[in-house]
Amino acid sequence: MHKKLQELKTRLLEVNNLKSASAVLAWDQATYMPPGGTPARARQLATLERLAHEKFIDPALGRLLDELLPYGESLPYDSDEASLIRITRRDYERATRIPPSFRAEFTSHMAESYQAWTQARPANDFAAVRPYLEKGLELCRQFAEFYPGYEHIADPWIHEWDYGLKASTVRSLFADLREQLVPLVQTIADRPLADDSCLHQHFPEALQWDFGLDVARRFGYDMQRGRQDKVPHPFTTNFSIGDVRITTEVKEDDVSWALFGTLHEAGHGLYEQGIHPALEGTPLAVGTSAGMHESQSRLWENVVGRNQRFWQFFYPRLQAVFPAQLGAVSLDTFYRAINRVERTLIRGSADEVTYNLHIMLRFDLELALLEGSLAVKDLPEAWRTRFQADFGLIPTDDRDGVMQDSHWYADGIGGQFQGYTLGNILSAQFYEAALQAHPEILDEMAQGEFGTLHGWLRERIYQHGRKFTANELVERVIGGPMRIEPYLHYLRNKYGELYRIQ
Amino acid sequence: MHKKLQELKTRLLEVNNLKSASAVLAWDQATYMPPGGTPARARQLATLERLAHEKFIDPALGRLLDELLPYGESLPYDSDEASLIRITRRDYERATRIPPSFRAEFTSHMAESYQAWTQARPANDFAAVRPYLEKGLELCRQFAEFYPGYEHIADPWIHEWDYGLKASTVRSLFADLREQLVPLVQTIADRPLADDSCLHQHFPEALQWDFGLDVARRFGYDMQRGRQDKVPHPFTTNFSIGDVRITTEVKEDDVSWALFGTLHEAGHGLYEQGIHPALEGTPLAVGTSAGMHESQSRLWENVVGRNQRFWQFFYPRLQAVFPAQLGAVSLDTFYRAINRVERTLIRGSADEVTYNLHIMLRFDLELALLEGSLAVKDLPEAWRTRFQADFGLIPTDDRDGVMQDSHWYADGIGGQFQGYTLGNILSAQFYEAALQAHPEILDEMAQGEFGTLHGWLRERIYQHGRKFTANELVERVIGGPMRIEPYLHYLRNKYGELYRIQ
Repeated sequence: MHKKLQELKTRLLEVNNLKSASAVLAWDQATYMPPGGTPARARQLATLERLAHEKFIDPALGRLLDELLPYGESLPYDSDEASLIRITRRDYERATRIPPSFRAEFTSHMAESYQAWTQARPANDFAAVRPYLEKGLELCRQFAEFYPGYEHIADPWIHEWDYGLKASTVRSLFADLREQLVPLVQTIADRPLADDSCLHQHFPEALQWDFGLDVARRFGYDMQRGRQDKVPHPFTTNFSIGDVRITTEVKEDDVSWALFGTLHEAGHGLYEQGIHPALEGTPLAVGTSAGMHESQSRLWENVVGRNQRFWQFFYPRLQAVFPAQLGAVSLDTFYRAINRVERTLIRGSADEVTYNLHIMLRFDLELALLEGSLAVKDLPEAWRTRFQADFGLIPTDDRDGVMQDSHWYADGIGGQFQGYTLGNILSAQFYEAALQAHPEILDEMAQGEFGTLHGWLRERIYQHGRKFTANELVERVIGGPMRIEPYLHYLRNKYGELYRIQ
Repeated sequence: MHKKLQELKTRLLEVNNLKSASAVLAWDQATYMPPGGTPARARQLATLERLAHEKFIDPALGRLLDELLPYGESLPYDSDEASLIRITRRDYERATRIPPSFRAEFTSHMAESYQAWTQARPANDFAAVRPYLEKGLELCRQFAEFYPGYEHIADPWIHEWDYGLKASTVRSLFADLREQLVPLVQTIADRPLADDSCLHQHFPEALQWDFGLDVARRFGYDMQRGRQDKVPHPFTTNFSIGDVRITTEVKEDDVSWALFGTLHEAGHGLYEQGIHPALEGTPLAVGTSAGMHESQSRLWENVVGRNQRFWQFFYPRLQAVFPAQLGAVSLDTFYRAINRVERTLIRGSADEVTYNLHIMLRFDLELALLEGSLAVKDLPEAWRTRFQADFGLIPTDDRDGVMQDSHWYADGIGGQFQGYTLGNILSAQFYEAALQAHPEILDEMAQGEFGTLHGWLRERIYQHGRKFTANELVERVIGGPMRIEPYLHYLRNKYGELYRIQ
């Protein structure tokens, strides 16, 4: 068995090498590639993805997994080896449904589509991306058809990003959350808006950059095993546990954009840097689901990064970096500004309370597109109509409407967004559990120290990578299932105080 | 035949995609990769190189080439298709000698070795790289043994970089050149040294960066299909004809370092950007040999970049960028400074006259290492001894001695250096031919215009990529073989005037 396991690992390492190479090329495309590189990049990525896929669905690998299955089941469930065999087998069963030619076509299309989006968005030119989106939707529908027997056509995609969930479960969870959120948003909307003009002054890029990275480092993001680069739409990627990169976008007229963006990506980065080195080079060396990943990005960005105690420590430092802009602004004013609740157009800078409404809108539109009840040509109008219904606002253009996020253009339609709201819900649950175990986290935060919180998360969540499903992991960490109550409690508590709601 | 040719191209495109991906990963390693990425990067590169090699030496590809051979020979010799079949077959015959496992081991070793060098060089720690160099030498000797029947063990390596040449031909060429060069160096050494203190002031990095790139752009380097990044040891790489990247190193206390480095790499970049788009994705879409490549880097760096007419245009502009440093320095003083001939330690900044002595030293040491007449442990001492004999100087440390260049650490020992001197020789021959065809090149240069020279070189050399061997190409461009006389004439003319030698 030892020899067979070794052979499995060797085969998986080759797949990992190809996928990591593909990730490097995608990172390069987003960060530094000159425009002339686009056509060749699409075919390079397609070749890497196709080969990785071919190597992974090799029937010899399937036979190896069959032979190893009883051995895996004889080991403790949570051992590295049992998990490797169990998860790889699950992946194998899913992957063998997809022909390599489809994988290549999908990857190549998405590389071109992403590139088209990067140019069309600033030009507010939806017509330029529409054919890409139409072809992308067609491919995403084809993908779903490789998994016949689904309850909803989005299920195979939701499975891809948040294994174990279905459209119907997400819909019902979102309905429950929405029922509580909408009145909260309304109550806050009836109060006077917090003044956030202090955030909208001129903040030179280099100073913002250094400040954000300094916070990320204090969180525990390791620059020896990571770096940060500029992109039009930030993301985190990893090429190994030793090379986990974050990206950010800086706006000189908004000090909050890059800062919270950096903390968000640093949260993703902490997760992937925290995976146990024993899992390196295997399919287990990434975060376990979109929801779990977002639970970390949102925890570090919001629960920590928009916390009053956090700013007790960091605000004097931020003032020292920007004395002309913030020297005369009080901590309280600043704290209220970064937690201002307002129905706005942009998801990325939305406050914690309205954020989930942005997600629900995207989730529902994804489902409609996949179902075929909404055509791509009608998507801009559908976006505007729904936006007006949920936010009382009509986006002034498609740039800040249907072209706002890269997801549909870069990764496809389906399963792309529910993870953010799942992440919000889980972030509050995890934070509550961490505080219960270590109340000193609050005092540390006020000193700019995060070792206890980071260590607790690494120990309980990060180190396991993909060994456990999100559901299993939540059960292990919390001792129960995902629940919306801690999140609603967190929101009501924080915003009740901020907006003096009884 | 059309179908078979199409199949050949499809197979070659897959190989090209893998090799291009490998080039992206190598570029990333040199430019931006955090230290923690090293171990995984070595295995990622090894997998890509191994797969590219496996796909290329597939017997099915060999059969296809056999079947296409008569067809290729029926076409005009210089047609794209005849060249593709001819050159690919030559490559195939050479490549099938190398087992994929060797290719993987070699690549992986070189990635680790390069990384070790980047840390050992600043620390002046030869002991840290010695084991890498020893293993590298061993692998390079093994490589040569895959081509039995060589005249000299370095020949397979020289063939790899400068197809058609052997150690004995290079030695005899170098001996002829040396016979003329040594007295010239001595004559100049007897004259007073030009004053180059104007170059060694404080020149802020960002200003140097912009100035160098502006010249590169005026040469014709297309930033839509390229970019420049910082590295410890500059190089040029391409991931497609639409994505050809240069790199540079800036020293704030030496305005000439980054500038001439940028012009050198821009010369390489012009060559690869100038390849005809019809060759994209084939083995023909790179420069044809090290010597031909260096003929372009050295032509643009030296023949153009250290030309008096060039500086008639650019010097006032450089003064405007650095008024405090150069405002009071005359054009004549500056021109003499950048052409100061002096026996110094560093190849990269050596003047045109002594430069070839640096190359000959390295070439001879490579041969001795491969022959086994010199052990790696004795290399630092051998370097010092030879350096003293040729330059009358002893390197003060290994950093500027045996660890000065990345080549042996990053790419192996053998065939690494002769290309620079071949390039110097050819640069003068090409320039002479271009001037003969277009005497207006001189006036254009004095106006900062390079369209005629660039166009002539692109038409005669660049567009052909690897369709012709270096020897064939020289014959086509010059109407005769490579000769050292035009180069010696160029040197005697220029430096005779500068140093008032009769």
